[in-house]
Amino acid sequence: MPKFVYDFIEGNRELTDLLGGKGANLAEMTRLGLPVPPGFTVTTVACRAYLAAGAPPAGMFDEVNRHLRGIEARLGKRLGDRHDPLLLAVRSGARYSMPGMMETVLDIGLTDTTVHGLAAQSGDDRFAWDSYRRLVQMFGRTVFGVPDELFTAELETVKRTAGVTADSALDADDLRALVEAYQKVFHQHTGRDFPQSPHEQLDLAIRAVFESWNAERAVLYRRQERIPAELGTAVNVMAMVFGNRGPDSGTGVAFTRDPATGARGVYGDYLANAQGEDVVSGVRNTVPLQELERIDPRSFHRLMTIMDTLEHHYRDLCDVEFTIERGTLWMLQTRVGKRTAEAAFVIAAQLVDEGVIDLDEALDRVTGAQLGQLMFPRFDPASAPTPLAVGVPAAPGAAVGRVVFDSEAAVAAAGRGERVILVRRETNPDDLPGMIAAAGILTSRGGKTSHAAVVARGMGRTCVCGAEALTVDTAAGQLTVADGTGAAPTVLHAGDLISIDGATGAVYAGAVPVHPSPVLRYIEGELAPEADPLVSAVHRLLGHADVVRRLAVRANADTAADAHRARAFGAAGIGLCRTEHMFLGDRRELVERLILAETDADREAALAALRPLQRQDFEALLAETDGQPVTIRLLDPPLHEFLPALDELTARVARAEALGEDPGHDGQLLAAVRRMHEANPMLGLRGVRLGLMVPGLFATQVRAIAEATVARLRAGGDPRPQIMVPLVGAVQELEAVRDQAEALLADFDGLPPIPVGTMIEVPRAALTASAIAEVADFFSFGTNDLTQLGWGFSRDDVEGVFFGRYLELGIFPVSPFESIDTAGIGRLVQIAVADARATRPDLEIGVCGEHGGDPDSVRFFHDAGFDYVSCSPYRVPLARLEAGRAAVRLAHRSDTR
Amino acid sequence: MPKFVYDFIEGNRELTDLLGGKGANLAEMTRLGLPVPPGFTVTTVACRAYLAAGAPPAGMFDEVNRHLRGIEARLGKRLGDRHDPLLLAVRSGARYSMPGMMETVLDIGLTDTTVHGLAAQSGDDRFAWDSYRRLVQMFGRTVFGVPDELFTAELETVKRTAGVTADSALDADDLRALVEAYQKVFHQHTGRDFPQSPHEQLDLAIRAVFESWNAERAVLYRRQERIPAELGTAVNVMAMVFGNRGPDSGTGVAFTRDPATGARGVYGDYLANAQGEDVVSGVRNTVPLQELERIDPRSFHRLMTIMDTLEHHYRDLCDVEFTIERGTLWMLQTRVGKRTAEAAFVIAAQLVDEGVIDLDEALDRVTGAQLGQLMFPRFDPASAPTPLAVGVPAAPGAAVGRVVFDSEAAVAAAGRGERVILVRRETNPDDLPGMIAAAGILTSRGGKTSHAAVVARGMGRTCVCGAEALTVDTAAGQLTVADGTGAAPTVLHAGDLISIDGATGAVYAGAVPVHPSPVLRYIEGELAPEADPLVSAVHRLLGHADVVRRLAVRANADTAADAHRARAFGAAGIGLCRTEHMFLGDRRELVERLILAETDADREAALAALRPLQRQDFEALLAETDGQPVTIRLLDPPLHEFLPALDELTARVARAEALGEDPGHDGQLLAAVRRMHEANPMLGLRGVRLGLMVPGLFATQVRAIAEATVARLRAGGDPRPQIMVPLVGAVQELEAVRDQAEALLADFDGLPPIPVGTMIEVPRAALTASAIAEVADFFSFGTNDLTQLGWGFSRDDVEGVFFGRYLELGIFPVSPFESIDTAGIGRLVQIAVADARATRPDLEIGVCGEHGGDPDSVRFFHDAGFDYVSCSPYRVPLARLEAGRAAVRLAHRSDTR
Repeated sequence: MPKFVYDFIEGNRELTDLLGGKGANLAEMTRLGLPVPPGFTVTTVACRAYLAAGAPPAGMFDEVNRHLRGIEARLGKRLGDRHDPLLLAVRSGARYSMPGMMETVLDIGLTDTTVHGLAAQSGDDRFAWDSYRRLVQMFGRTVFGVPDELFTAELETVKRTAGVTADSALDADDLRALVEAYQKVFHQHTGRDFPQSPHEQLDLAIRAVFESWNAERAVLYRRQERIPAELGTAVNVMAMVFGNRGPDSGTGVAFTRDPATGARGVYGDYLANAQGEDVVSGVRNTVPLQELERIDPRSFHRLMTIMDTLEHHYRDLCDVEFTIERGTLWMLQTRVGKRTAEAAFVIAAQLVDEGVIDLDEALDRVTGAQLGQLMFPRFDPASAPTPLAVGVPAAPGAAVGRVVFDSEAAVAAAGRGERVILVRRETNPDDLPGMIAAAGILTSRGGKTSHAAVVARGMGRTCVCGAEALTVDTAAGQLTVADGTGAAPTVLHAGDLISIDGATGAVYAGAVPVHPSPVLRYIEGELAPEADPLVSAVHRLLGHADVVRRLAVRANADTAADAHRARAFGAAGIGLCRTEHMFLGDRRELVERLILAETDADREAALAALRPLQRQDFEALLAETDGQPVTIRLLDPPLHEFLPALDELTARVARAEALGEDPGHDGQLLAAVRRMHEANPMLGLRGVRLGLMVPGLFATQVRAIAEATVARLRAGGDPRPQIMVPLVGAVQELEAVRDQAEALLADFDGLPPIPVGTMIEVPRAALTASAIAEVADFFSFGTNDLTQLGWGFSRDDVEGVFFGRYLELGIFPVSPFESIDTAGIGRLVQIAVADARATRPDLEIGVCGEHGGDPDSVRFFHDAGFDYVSCSPYRVPLARLEAGRAAVRLAHRSDTR
Repeated sequence: MPKFVYDFIEGNRELTDLLGGKGANLAEMTRLGLPVPPGFTVTTVACRAYLAAGAPPAGMFDEVNRHLRGIEARLGKRLGDRHDPLLLAVRSGARYSMPGMMETVLDIGLTDTTVHGLAAQSGDDRFAWDSYRRLVQMFGRTVFGVPDELFTAELETVKRTAGVTADSALDADDLRALVEAYQKVFHQHTGRDFPQSPHEQLDLAIRAVFESWNAERAVLYRRQERIPAELGTAVNVMAMVFGNRGPDSGTGVAFTRDPATGARGVYGDYLANAQGEDVVSGVRNTVPLQELERIDPRSFHRLMTIMDTLEHHYRDLCDVEFTIERGTLWMLQTRVGKRTAEAAFVIAAQLVDEGVIDLDEALDRVTGAQLGQLMFPRFDPASAPTPLAVGVPAAPGAAVGRVVFDSEAAVAAAGRGERVILVRRETNPDDLPGMIAAAGILTSRGGKTSHAAVVARGMGRTCVCGAEALTVDTAAGQLTVADGTGAAPTVLHAGDLISIDGATGAVYAGAVPVHPSPVLRYIEGELAPEADPLVSAVHRLLGHADVVRRLAVRANADTAADAHRARAFGAAGIGLCRTEHMFLGDRRELVERLILAETDADREAALAALRPLQRQDFEALLAETDGQPVTIRLLDPPLHEFLPALDELTARVARAEALGEDPGHDGQLLAAVRRMHEANPMLGLRGVRLGLMVPGLFATQVRAIAEATVARLRAGGDPRPQIMVPLVGAVQELEAVRDQAEALLADFDGLPPIPVGTMIEVPRAALTASAIAEVADFFSFGTNDLTQLGWGFSRDDVEGVFFGRYLELGIFPVSPFESIDTAGIGRLVQIAVADARATRPDLEIGVCGEHGGDPDSVRFFHDAGFDYVSCSPYRVPLARLEAGRAAVRLAHRSDTR
């Protein structure tokens, strides 16, 4: 039989799986000799057994009672003792912190009998009855789901009767009456009396905590935070200590450093003569922790010493909850504290300076996602007014613009060059054009998985959603904000300025000044590394990542300007240059001629006219990337994408014909578009297929690359182009293109070797990677298409349509376009890498889909043995950092094995 | 060093890989003591070495010379001997027969000197010079590529000079002059003299045969017949025997049974006083073999005895080539003979009756493809006139209809209920509507990989293509046929009747009577098994296949009528019932209401109205399939497929608006279609996604299934429905639908267990099959979608666009929609089956894509461990046969290991 209960002295901080975070850290503090009230933890194993069977596992309550007797013996008090009752706190504590999601019951042990004992023993009637009414309310709410409002209504009645406004002004008699009223509420709601057996109270409280694991809000939270549903929670049972025993008592929270900025020194808040829940409820204002030095210098210095001990012990920022009962300090919780992205970098660098951790470990403590946040502009905290409302921060950034209420207005305003915020109750696929046109998106409904959130993240728009204080009236063209105080609501109209903060969810009226990101300015070379502590920390950790990482980081860049930026951001070359833009703009007419060509001569003439233009493009690109690899992908999209859309032409021609006019050129175009129409263009004539079907198309591109390379060589440059064939599904396709390319390249004297490789973006290519590796110089995984084909859905068609629902249903924990789906698409990637390397161990393998810039995915690619990732230039620093973290982590892992 | 040359006495018929088919069988006949001229075979190993190095492997010609000396010793003649020269025949012979593709040189050994020795020795000047002129021509053509026309022109000149018309009327002097003329042609074309060294002749001839392996026509043939390019050919060198030594000489071919019908008794043709190539050239008419009994009874009876020996030895139909030289019979070749589909079945059954083979082996000797051919109607051979032309038989069937020259005309005629044959020079995607409307397709250009051929096979239309004798003049609306005789051409016009035979490639003017297939009539129960030998053979072999096969065969059937036919054809249930037709026809209006529903109540009302209609459909289906499993797939296509097409609506609305009219309902529909429009519907909101997004949709279907089941149970039936969820990519999708379905089914009393399973048609489902198997009662592979997604192309968009080119380039040997692509998609299937069975060894696994009825694919599914295949009702017999063959083959294999 497993052991279901651990005394605090038996556990340690390594046992978080078993004891939860809170229990493991309470045990650690106990082992360190810090003043923790005696207690024990019921394990997650017990919880899982309870949830599976619907009943506690055999022997669990025997163990609980045995450990309870240990506490009683240590404290010389007994649960239920009518003269000196032991009181207990029961708190949940899971492996991962789930703030506000889980349950707590304090003051267990009080009954109509023992309340008198507590009164006598403490010499404080008021304290005893106050504790009892707290118990009835917390127990009623937590264990039986009695709505809080029912209790609050009774409290208001009693206060009105007593003629007071503050809870603290109620005397013992008032509170005794309140307990009676609360017990009636309890009876009415549950159909039973408030339990008068302290052991039954404890039993029911433990069960309630177990059950809270599957409460709806906890399930939703876990899904969003990607916490496995099967972990279960532990339950911590601890002797009560009281911060509400008079002016020499109190409660507080403290951090070993500033969790907002990372600045050194203990930060915190203190509330005298109060319990922890009073701090949370915000009924009274806390004071800065420093004032405790004046109020109770002994406890203050004791706390400072403990904080120091904890930080040295945990080698990181810690936060604590503490209580002082009549001058005695008790530690109720500690953990490695949450912090902002800024603080994470600053503290990691500080700890290195302080000799506490080395650079590897510092790197492991920051994330690419944090670095990504720091690269966005931010509202100036100093000049930001009080928010109108706070919603769900759904996609990062700080966006300022004029309010528009529909997609058409957004598109129209954007057309006039105005920045707008699209405000909707919620969005749907019809709003897509407006979402593209807007600087930001604000909704009053929906969470991180709503259409607005999913699409905004996908397209990189700032988004705040589910700001429920807002009432959006599209018809009236106004936005009403109730602040909850009953004051007249604020009303905004279309055209009013508004600011939304995608990092915090705050919504502000007016234009809040936006500060450019100092981190971005540093990365762009505009700020020196020593400019401020944050920039300095980023500089050091990014620099270390560059030293330790095995993955190279390239950028996706189509133009010389993109390539220039990519290099500045630390890219080691271009992993993907899409050539489709070279067929757009002023070249449309030539491309149209190419497509409509009716003879070989027409087609060849159009291609011949396109070639010098492409040569110039390639030359400019190669000039920016001297000495670095530049992977140029031959034309990928279907040719009809370069012609007007079918329904647009259909409407124009139908209109002309209805009016008896000659549709002219439109008629000719329509015929061509109809001929080339594809029901599913993504699955049609594109990529290598196009190259094999349209004579001269790829050849023109290959020649232009060769000519540009020769020109750069003559200019003294060091051009290193690579030719990449898109959409290969069979080795024979690559062979055919490769043979043709090699024959063409052989015509150029003095050309350096130009590698010819392929995208791996079609599942069949991954499945036949062994054969393809024999004729490819490199593989570049196109995980975007691989995801689309592997799942059988096209991002454009489905992301805004059902991804929100799928995220809610837990079908995926995160969009597979954001992070690579390791179980499915990732497995395909692993199969391909293993097969390809078995054929050709030195094959260069990279990725050029958007996953190349996603932190979790970078780690996956590192583990899968890739040589490089390629991502958008702005994501290059993030990918560098994550590549470093991945390398450090693997090194650690192998150390400990 | 390997042995490069085998004397006939050293080899045997098992050595076909090494000696080629011809060489191995010559060796076998030699070992049997049959009269084979002495000779030897140069191996395929030597050929491969030659082709790889561009030169014969070291030692090869030494071996050739050693074996040559062996022949000389046996015959007492020497190559190059001026008095009694040995003459040799050099013939290619690969592992697989490649008729007309490879090379032969006869009479090697004749020179200006030895020709006199041959004349003296044979006492026949004419014979000697005739042989010499044959050598110069064959050697020139085969070894140096001298065009035949150049020789033919000289022959005509000599005949004109001599005043004769038949070759045989030329005398020795004429032929001597001809040799001189041929040698001049040879010199002019090659720049060198005709080789006067017999050893050089032999050397060059062997090299030429090796090189013919890579001749263009051989490469094309191999690609079409899926013969591996790396095999190489062997070369057979044999002493010449002569059928042209006078009336007591001759040459012929014979079969041990009739290769057309399988009838018992020796069949063949004989040509007196002639060589083999005279038979092929058809200059003189052969006589039936029976006449040889009169001409040369001794040789005839000897031949009959040999044929008997061969058939008993090979235990199958054999064909032979033989030559009689002055009353002495020589066997020049034998092999297991090709035969028609009909003969294959009849002979296999006969051999069982004769106790030569058992039923397993008989089954192994027929194919599903042959059975498929036999199920098509045929033109009556007796009443078929001389064909107008013969093209490439590209898609089977016998089609009769009126000539149309374009797609519009085909569609219009089909609309009037006329059967038409679409006649084009070649087809392209614009012709698709016409190809669908036509009964058959005839083109004058292109082969088996042309657009017409690929598309016709894909859609099951009869097709003859590349009938090059036809001139198609679309503008003039006429079809001209030149018969090559210089006679006035036949001209057909639009509207004329024409008949095309997809089995033979024959094109006939007029309506040739079509006979229904007796095999189909038998399968449909209209003919008794004993009706004729063919039907009887099919009955026995199909029956045996049913006994031995492990794979069950189900049918894809959507309606009660289909299900009825499927059962008659031997299906063991329905493997796929698509439910989309239940949303069409008179239900369109309800479906439109469902789609346009603006409230839950509207939607529910539409669904409620659909449910009883669906219940009736299911009830009728289950009534036809009592006691058999019926796999019902929940709705798969995107809902907008049930609305009019976007561009059709766009044009209607644009027209109305241009004319200032109110588009009315069209306007509302257009808005809905626009909202639901998908760029790639195949990758959009369909399948299980639809079920999770449209409340009540799947629930309505599940309820209708349950209600129909209950109704059938009440009627005393044995309904066995299974519910299949389409397009699952993640186990969570299936879980969600399954949970909902089970909750609904629990409401029905007395329902039998209804299994809930899933299609495996999305690559990710295959990659995560292990997880999905945990919640699925069965898997049904949708290899059509799996092929589309795995390759990243949609059949409709690409099959007619680039498949022809891809087949030509050898990117695939056959369309991956016809036979499963084992290297890519097949591997995915194998991964999924292995993972799923590891999770759940008893999982039922089947396939319901079109591959379920393809012979090669059935074998693959058998090997992959499937439980069943499901295919269209017409393919059920074929699949039964192939399933039996697959089982027999595996059994054999395990026997011999």
